[in-house]
Amino acid sequence: MEDLKLHGFWYSPFTMRVVWTLKLKGLSYENIEEDRFNKSPQLLEYNPVHKKTPVLVHGGKPICESMIIVQYIDELWPQNPLVPHDSYDRAQARFWVAYSEQMVPALPALIQSTSAEEKEKAVQKAWENFKVLEDHCLADKRKFFGGDKINIVDIAIGSFFVFFVTIEDLKQVKILVAEKFPLLHLWFDNFKNAPVIKENFPDREKMLATMKAILERRLASS
Amino acid sequence: MEDLKLHGFWYSPFTMRVVWTLKLKGLSYENIEEDRFNKSPQLLEYNPVHKKTPVLVHGGKPICESMIIVQYIDELWPQNPLVPHDSYDRAQARFWVAYSEQMVPALPALIQSTSAEEKEKAVQKAWENFKVLEDHCLADKRKFFGGDKINIVDIAIGSFFVFFVTIEDLKQVKILVAEKFPLLHLWFDNFKNAPVIKENFPDREKMLATMKAILERRLASS
Repeated sequence: MEDLKLHGFWYSPFTMRVVWTLKLKGLSYENIEEDRFNKSPQLLEYNPVHKKTPVLVHGGKPICESMIIVQYIDELWPQNPLVPHDSYDRAQARFWVAYSEQMVPALPALIQSTSAEEKEKAVQKAWENFKVLEDHCLADKRKFFGGDKINIVDIAIGSFFVFFVTIEDLKQVKILVAEKFPLLHLWFDNFKNAPVIKENFPDREKMLATMKAILERRLASS
Repeated sequence: MEDLKLHGFWYSPFTMRVVWTLKLKGLSYENIEEDRFNKSPQLLEYNPVHKKTPVLVHGGKPICESMIIVQYIDELWPQNPLVPHDSYDRAQARFWVAYSEQMVPALPALIQSTSAEEKEKAVQKAWENFKVLEDHCLADKRKFFGGDKINIVDIAIGSFFVFFVTIEDLKQVKILVAEKFPLLHLWFDNFKNAPVIKENFPDREKMLATMKAILERRLASS
């Protein structure tokens, strides 16, 4: 067994990226579930700059930032490659991984929206990103962003879509509208049903309950 | 000669990263100077998502986003390697490249500050980043972020420091205070005096005049 420890929150999209990567590689690891409101001293020591999860500890040495961890794993364990081999394809994949980060602000905006107006505005913002993905990334009707197989782009973007569909339940709002984004809708269907991803896909009810609890705690303390 | 074209603005920190990389690799390229206020149709075609410079066009194919371009060049032309060979060192370098992006908001905040209070606040924000670099990245008194040789971290961060020192002239404010950040001050001295960087370092007066002109144009149109 490899000496791998993962500090994270099971419901975090960033932790999810690393879990999926470890599972796609067939690697076993020790999972260290952090408490969002009381992070372990080890975590703070491993990531003194950002104090954030996930952190992968490999042979005692910490690696921080989800997509940096994904690339690190992919470089050390080449089975089921996630980063394209061709330099140009690799640059394109990195472009879309960087683009995925533009979707981050949409998540708290959607979750914390209280008025119908705020919710509508947050949905529109997410749709701007969805349209770019639909028009520029999936226009050739590929199965995954990676083509026939899942790659780093699917992992980067897929983790956020777990959240978008949870928010649909939480806020009673339709975000990933099939008629509006048919290719993106089909992609997410392919992604969540792919072996390994399906087996390690968070349970919808459990995700919803956890989001509700975090939101209530946040509202109570604000 | 390689079929390389670079669309950019000579004074942009993001373009500068690519210029330094091409020069460090000893590559010749065609420079296409874009007009910030009237970008070429080619640029918009090459980067339809962000519509931003720099774009490197290699054999007719565009690569966008400065640090993705830097990695692309480094992978294709291995002389003077800029990305560490060891996987763990590579992950660490990527961490600091990602961190450098946190300094981006400090630049317009400093440039556009009008009151003394705004200027003070923007300087303090930049100093938070400087302190992290001073304490976590340079504490072992290495010559460059890359150790004995310049690497992607120096390129990523160095481009912003060209701006910080220009802003010192523009705003009559001391930002890179030697007494406060002795290691960072020494690093920037090493960096700007390194061969290739020194030869391709923007002229201080010309940078200042350009910044002044952009700022005046922006104030006039706001």
